[in-house]
Amino acid sequence: MLTDSPAASLAQAIFSPRSIALVGASADPAKYNARPQRFLRDHGYAGCVFPVNPGRKEIFGVRAFPDLRSIPGRVDHAFIMVPAAGVPEVLAQCRERGVPVATIFSAGFAELGEEGLARQREMVRQARAGGLRLIGPNCMGIISVPDATPLTVNAVLGRELLKAGPLSVISQSGSMLGTLLSRAQARGLGFARLVSVGNECDLGVGEIANLLVDDPHTGAILLFLETFRDAEHLARAARRAAAAGQPVIAYKLGRSAVGRQVANSHTGAMTGPDELADAFFRAHGIIRVAMIESLFEAPRLVMGHRPPSGRRVNAVTGTGGAAAMVVDRLGVLGIDVAAPPARVIANLAARGIPVAPVPLTDIPMVQGSGARYTAVLSELLGSRESDAVVAVVGSSAQSGPAVITDRILKAENRGRKPLAVFLAPRADEGLRLLEENGVAGFRTPETCADALCAYLNWRAPAEPFRAPPAALAAAEAFLARTDHARLNERDSHALFGALGIPTAGSCVVTEAAPEIPVPRASDAAGSPSFALKVLSADIAHKTDAGLVRLDVPAREARAEAAKLLETARRARPDARIDGVLVQRMERGLAEAIVGFRRDPEVGPMVMLGMGGVAAELRRSLAVRIAPVGPDEALRMIDEIPEMALLTGYRNLPRGDVTALARAVSAFSMLAALTSRPVLDAEVNPLIVKRDGEGVVAVDGLAVLG
Amino acid sequence: MLTDSPAASLAQAIFSPRSIALVGASADPAKYNARPQRFLRDHGYAGCVFPVNPGRKEIFGVRAFPDLRSIPGRVDHAFIMVPAAGVPEVLAQCRERGVPVATIFSAGFAELGEEGLARQREMVRQARAGGLRLIGPNCMGIISVPDATPLTVNAVLGRELLKAGPLSVISQSGSMLGTLLSRAQARGLGFARLVSVGNECDLGVGEIANLLVDDPHTGAILLFLETFRDAEHLARAARRAAAAGQPVIAYKLGRSAVGRQVANSHTGAMTGPDELADAFFRAHGIIRVAMIESLFEAPRLVMGHRPPSGRRVNAVTGTGGAAAMVVDRLGVLGIDVAAPPARVIANLAARGIPVAPVPLTDIPMVQGSGARYTAVLSELLGSRESDAVVAVVGSSAQSGPAVITDRILKAENRGRKPLAVFLAPRADEGLRLLEENGVAGFRTPETCADALCAYLNWRAPAEPFRAPPAALAAAEAFLARTDHARLNERDSHALFGALGIPTAGSCVVTEAAPEIPVPRASDAAGSPSFALKVLSADIAHKTDAGLVRLDVPAREARAEAAKLLETARRARPDARIDGVLVQRMERGLAEAIVGFRRDPEVGPMVMLGMGGVAAELRRSLAVRIAPVGPDEALRMIDEIPEMALLTGYRNLPRGDVTALARAVSAFSMLAALTSRPVLDAEVNPLIVKRDGEGVVAVDGLAVLG
Repeated sequence: MLTDSPAASLAQAIFSPRSIALVGASADPAKYNARPQRFLRDHGYAGCVFPVNPGRKEIFGVRAFPDLRSIPGRVDHAFIMVPAAGVPEVLAQCRERGVPVATIFSAGFAELGEEGLARQREMVRQARAGGLRLIGPNCMGIISVPDATPLTVNAVLGRELLKAGPLSVISQSGSMLGTLLSRAQARGLGFARLVSVGNECDLGVGEIANLLVDDPHTGAILLFLETFRDAEHLARAARRAAAAGQPVIAYKLGRSAVGRQVANSHTGAMTGPDELADAFFRAHGIIRVAMIESLFEAPRLVMGHRPPSGRRVNAVTGTGGAAAMVVDRLGVLGIDVAAPPARVIANLAARGIPVAPVPLTDIPMVQGSGARYTAVLSELLGSRESDAVVAVVGSSAQSGPAVITDRILKAENRGRKPLAVFLAPRADEGLRLLEENGVAGFRTPETCADALCAYLNWRAPAEPFRAPPAALAAAEAFLARTDHARLNERDSHALFGALGIPTAGSCVVTEAAPEIPVPRASDAAGSPSFALKVLSADIAHKTDAGLVRLDVPAREARAEAAKLLETARRARPDARIDGVLVQRMERGLAEAIVGFRRDPEVGPMVMLGMGGVAAELRRSLAVRIAPVGPDEALRMIDEIPEMALLTGYRNLPRGDVTALARAVSAFSMLAALTSRPVLDAEVNPLIVKRDGEGVVAVDGLAVLG
Repeated sequence: MLTDSPAASLAQAIFSPRSIALVGASADPAKYNARPQRFLRDHGYAGCVFPVNPGRKEIFGVRAFPDLRSIPGRVDHAFIMVPAAGVPEVLAQCRERGVPVATIFSAGFAELGEEGLARQREMVRQARAGGLRLIGPNCMGIISVPDATPLTVNAVLGRELLKAGPLSVISQSGSMLGTLLSRAQARGLGFARLVSVGNECDLGVGEIANLLVDDPHTGAILLFLETFRDAEHLARAARRAAAAGQPVIAYKLGRSAVGRQVANSHTGAMTGPDELADAFFRAHGIIRVAMIESLFEAPRLVMGHRPPSGRRVNAVTGTGGAAAMVVDRLGVLGIDVAAPPARVIANLAARGIPVAPVPLTDIPMVQGSGARYTAVLSELLGSRESDAVVAVVGSSAQSGPAVITDRILKAENRGRKPLAVFLAPRADEGLRLLEENGVAGFRTPETCADALCAYLNWRAPAEPFRAPPAALAAAEAFLARTDHARLNERDSHALFGALGIPTAGSCVVTEAAPEIPVPRASDAAGSPSFALKVLSADIAHKTDAGLVRLDVPAREARAEAAKLLETARRARPDARIDGVLVQRMERGLAEAIVGFRRDPEVGPMVMLGMGGVAAELRRSLAVRIAPVGPDEALRMIDEIPEMALLTGYRNLPRGDVTALARAVSAFSMLAALTSRPVLDAEVNPLIVKRDGEGVVAVDGLAVLG
């Protein structure tokens, strides 16, 4: 690890401290706070350990100190286990002594609610003022394997020997460190750094991930997440990791509403709908797995590989039923295992190995045909026409190392693309042997499919979309002119129009200006009719309140507008009423909904959905981190099943999806406006016309910060 | 096992044979066909073993025979390993010697295609004629643990000691026996009987399951399925098992299209859409799991319990993150973990244990609070207001048996309802201890959620629906009068109408009878208009062919009908044209589709879907084994998200779902017609009107056998 930058110094103090103070260390071996000292000793920590406990002269044979001040020499890292009330004083001493980092095990902060949060914020303020960085509070500590530094209370350290390897873990759940460590090590997998981040009052998942990008011991960064507290840091770290060829793999709770509630009550953090998490991971090149053991099984599959160019996976097996489990599960996840490419079949035929063009190539691994299995595997790995290979081993996986060594490890072209090996029976030795030889082994068909799916869905971090400066300038100019926080329909349309979204031609009728100029026509259809709507940011649900008229012929528009104004003034004398919006009625093939929001966790996002109750019932939508370019917007359209109605389904006329994509991209530029932040905005509906005829926004709103 | 019935004698010969002939036994230990003799010896089989091999006098120290004829004394069970061509001769000898059952390992039959199938059929014909029952061919054999009878070539028997227990397995994949045995036994689970059924030429999954219902050693019947070959037998066995309180748990491939294709190419059997498998399992009280390890983890959860009355599950944990994984996964599966019932909270408060009304009750298991964990668990298990409990144990699960014994096993009310225990870290000893004490332990959060979900979705076998005799009689009378195989719209409607489905008023215009009597009105709307359609079972896609007119006013109907007839005769001089159907135009709130089919695997099924392209895009439908009663039909309606548009969504008018359910039930009675079997039928669309106004079928077809 480099030591000539502030980040390198910080990483050194966190992961490779030369001296550690254990503040609140206990001499009672039954207590939590006796553990770190024992773990450091038992796992061979080579630096200095200073137990701090005002009531003891020594603890387990090591000299104890009443406080940090009395420790002779430098302290790189303080591990704090005193009750919450005593933490500020300890931190004051850390600052005094120039300790660069403190890990706070103590609970009693933000996880308790408002009061605890205030205490935590004050603590961070003071620490930062003194140049002290904090991990935790309410965390389980750090395990740094290459430095034999298990700075944690996690009981797993009392049972497990540490095995070095490329996996580093950052977890928002402290107990998960032990779960992951014990399960993975039993499989022969090894670790570099494991960090429990607790409440993330200062150093969070993102900043620590960023340090690990530069860690020569770390080959893959694994995240166990309940929420996002420093999404911007994490995004940057993930992009740096991608550039460095280091995979970042996440398991995140909150796929279901009850899961979000539970993660919430557990961490005290706010979590959002799961689509947002997916959008975040996708935008920044983070691989997401859905099963906990995939989190440590997937790294070996993806390490050394780039995101795939397609979603083509081939399969070879020595046993039909077991492989069918993987293939079936992949199919459920939306990935259809493909038959071997024609060239592979031809190459194998030339070698005297007949292979059928079916998804599963089933070749016994023993009794003479084993070499064929290896040949098929080699050809599949060498083919440019597929993105990953799964090899399944049946009962022979149990009979010792021979079948693994002879059939899998001897395959040519290993390393060309990801290879997942699923061992059907219990075969712990086989899994260890695969790991020792750098091959990804999977214990169950479900994690095998999950990891393959995660790999095949992996994309390089999206190129940041550069919004056209002219559109941004026009929108900024509009924002500079408005002083409302909640824009009415007319002003929202003006903002969206400035960004390049076609809006229905309209004008505003007020008592002061009761004449109606004919709004510009946005299509070539015959005599226009109009929609009339009372213009007021103060009145919601205008249709229910009778303040909307549809299909009003041009000649009646003026009189209807006057009536509507009067109705509104009488019904809502309290409301600011800006007039009546007279808008050309627009029709098309379908209605879409486009939304924008600044999410408190992941930041600006754009959403596209199909209009109509049927789509609403299905919660059919696509979400991205904003802004997005038109190409990514087209991919959003592709994700929504109902959008097939616009792309040539069953003789239905095609809609203008190109214009729809342009509008989604334009709308997402709300994220890039800086003069005033747009917090929330929606176009509903955005009418999609026939191919070539464009889209038009007929209703919308925006809320500014 | 009883021995005084034919079934009992068969079970005895299969699972507890007193003498076994190994036909085609080899003396070369490297060969497959040397294994059964070695396995029988090594696992302590106490009966007589007769190796049959014309080239050997003895094999592994046991006297060998040139053929079955020369074996002295009775042979209970022949295990046949000779090449396919030699099998018929061996079976002839079996019949001659009165061998009651032969298990055929040899491949080369139906799995190879038509020719092999013919060979297989002839073999079965001859065997049945001689009173010989067959297992296989192309199967791995039988492992009967209580009788120490491993009659198989499966290599797993060379490595695993057999552990007795309540699990019996029937598998369509032979290699899965080893996979399940090795994985489950490592966890301390034990088995009774394991059967690989191969091609199921005679005894299939259903008949063998039926034998296991009466097996005192079998506590749960586990099925690994790729297809259904004897669904009727399996249905009967499952219903007998349910009556006997014995759970039947299935893992079935084919959840995805590619999975069905793969299962297909592997077994040579035809498989159908996965909804049909779900409908079959549900109809007959079979529990379905989605993950392979759930198949052996779920039995302990459900054994001794009846299907649940609700879907309420509570959770207690010593560690937040690990429990959140289970809860989140359950949420994804549609099951929301609930907060403890109010009475539980009150009871615990009275014992000085404060518990919040949130889904996850998080209580440390050590350091003094462990007894609280047990108290919470006891109260949750004792409550009548929930259906299952999940208990999660964190790192303390690793520290030896104490935490399991003290915290889980000491809980009161165990056995009152299913209890699932998930151990977060690697904790093999803990899992074994749970199993020894009859508690369901789970190795991963995903299988834990899968098994709980499978339990909560479990229903007792549906009471067979008794179709009203009058409706059946009317429909049978209609069938007796018709001699077509493919009914035209008019005749299909007559059939559906006989069963009680309202159909749109209509009459038929022919050249011979060109007058139009006004069809009876099925609603009270004003002046009717009509839909005209050329009536011909020979012409498909009549709308595309221009042979349909809609919204024809009454006064124009006659002339339009004549024109249509002429057009049809000119366009399709080859077709039988039965006239023009003049049908009252019907309108309603929505259109449904009702389908009926005799599936080659699971038999008669009824399908309900929403009409319209959006629903079609989503493949939104509900499927049941037919017939169903109106109550079950209502549950089908509830399963279809788009049907919410008819049940009071957002101020939309309510549709007549009661009438819809009655129509679905009536349509499903097609299954009960016996004079001629209905193979395929559809009403599309069935128009659903406002609540109280009924439904009406406006188009349909039926194909008779």
